[in-house]
Amino acid sequence: MASQKPVPRIVVSRLPVYLRALQHMAQEGKVVTSSQELAQRLGTTSAQIRKDLSYFGEFGRQGMGYEIGYLMQQLRRILHVDREWPVALVGAGDLGHALANYAGFPPEGFRIVAVFDNDPKKIGQTMAGLTIQDSAHLREVIARERLKVAIIAVPASGAQAVADELVAGGVRAILNYAPITLNVPEGVQVQYVDPVVHLQRMTFYLDDE
Amino acid sequence: MASQKPVPRIVVSRLPVYLRALQHMAQEGKVVTSSQELAQRLGTTSAQIRKDLSYFGEFGRQGMGYEIGYLMQQLRRILHVDREWPVALVGAGDLGHALANYAGFPPEGFRIVAVFDNDPKKIGQTMAGLTIQDSAHLREVIARERLKVAIIAVPASGAQAVADELVAGGVRAILNYAPITLNVPEGVQVQYVDPVVHLQRMTFYLDDE
Repeated sequence: MASQKPVPRIVVSRLPVYLRALQHMAQEGKVVTSSQELAQRLGTTSAQIRKDLSYFGEFGRQGMGYEIGYLMQQLRRILHVDREWPVALVGAGDLGHALANYAGFPPEGFRIVAVFDNDPKKIGQTMAGLTIQDSAHLREVIARERLKVAIIAVPASGAQAVADELVAGGVRAILNYAPITLNVPEGVQVQYVDPVVHLQRMTFYLDDE
Repeated sequence: MASQKPVPRIVVSRLPVYLRALQHMAQEGKVVTSSQELAQRLGTTSAQIRKDLSYFGEFGRQGMGYEIGYLMQQLRRILHVDREWPVALVGAGDLGHALANYAGFPPEGFRIVAVFDNDPKKIGQTMAGLTIQDSAHLREVIARERLKVAIIAVPASGAQAVADELVAGGVRAILNYAPITLNVPEGVQVQYVDPVVHLQRMTFYLDDE
């Protein structure tokens, strides 16, 4: 069904963006869209969208466009979020609190199931219904619970050590909020949440005044 | 010097990512790089990097690659972050606290200079050295201080009203952490911080187990 060409990372990186745009369209009550309409929303080209999707099969009909619900379902399957991933959160500071309470995760396939911190004053307290565990037990809890996905929300100084423990425990996907580049073995995915990149994408358009 | 072709949004969106990668290289002690090396780090192609940069001029020498410090300087100029942008932050909850204390902003051209919330218990309190102001005065403070950049860190239910006030006050670039799509007039930039998109980029690579 799907083609067997290896999928470039850049193509994979665009799929969740397509999924988000489709969700917004669905929320607006739209049922069908086109690669042209999607492209216009996202500031890209219809050719790129069609080419990206062609790695995975045929999702639209010639001249008919895409059925939004179906394409969303297929993207969720391709991205492996047609299931729920349990997630470990490391760092129970302000950002950790915000993430633990973030309402956007559960509907999209992610649920924070364990929270860690190394501050004795925080360990044992409750956050978003979870007991904050001692980071010293990070590796063993990760391994025991077979967690594959983790979020790092600790200061930059501690982030690499946390990443090392996560990987040792079996984590294979890390979302890193600490402003440093992590060194991880091949086969472990890392993504960075970097508000500066987003801000700089906008200041380009601000005139000198 | 720079060409006069209009720059596609998708090209602009990649420039801060190039800048980040160059900063990481500089931190590693590298002085010179190539479009090939940059491409490998970023999972893209050297042709795309060269084409993207060609919108703005010639930054490397044939066979010599790019001088990292110079290219960083030029990207900062192009992105208008060779100066400091004062930023308004709306929302003094957990996420707002984390953002107000985020050490990554000042070195990259951004400084939070005003914080707002609509909670009477928070108004008047201090956060990261700033007095939390009443959101009711958002528009007038934005206009008086001539702020062009703002960050929304309020719940989804209040985000559109905040965006409206920001725009009315003169804001032209909004970084939105609330999980909703904002409606803004043409000419106002919006970027979304969406951890789900990042997580989904990684689950693609996680096998079924």
